[in-house]
Amino acid sequence: MDMRKVIGSNFARLRKSKGLTQEAVAEKSGFSQSYIGWLERGQRNPTAISIWMLAQSVDAMPADLVQPVED
Amino acid sequence: MDMRKVIGSNFARLRKSKGLTQEAVAEKSGFSQSYIGWLERGQRNPTAISIWMLAQSVDAMPADLVQPVED
Repeated sequence: MDMRKVIGSNFARLRKSKGLTQEAVAEKSGFSQSYIGWLERGQRNPTAISIWMLAQSVDAMPADLVQPVED
Repeated sequence: MDMRKVIGSNFARLRKSKGLTQEAVAEKSGFSQSYIGWLERGQRNPTAISIWMLAQSVDAMPADLVQPVED
């Protein structure tokens, strides 16, 4: 199980379900838009504190980002 | 919310509930015993991949480690 891919797909799904752009969540979370892009492609390995900030930016809980979702 | 403290207390609680020593989970997870000690004191900020390895060492899921628990 690659947690980078789990977090990336969960984050993208949650962001889109809230009608938010990468730019909007970048601004809310304090991360750059390019970081958000890499994250969603499963290419970033965020720390626990970053996971909390990212979850907040899409009004979710950290568990929502790390929970593997059946495709 | 300090995710380091959330993960530390969840990990310690899960480890003890499974009757595992810090030494045993250190061996299973590949982390040092001192890292496990610091983690449980809320002094470490593990990455997503580390959270997965730590969860595996106590037979739990990553969500179990990042979910804030009411004291």
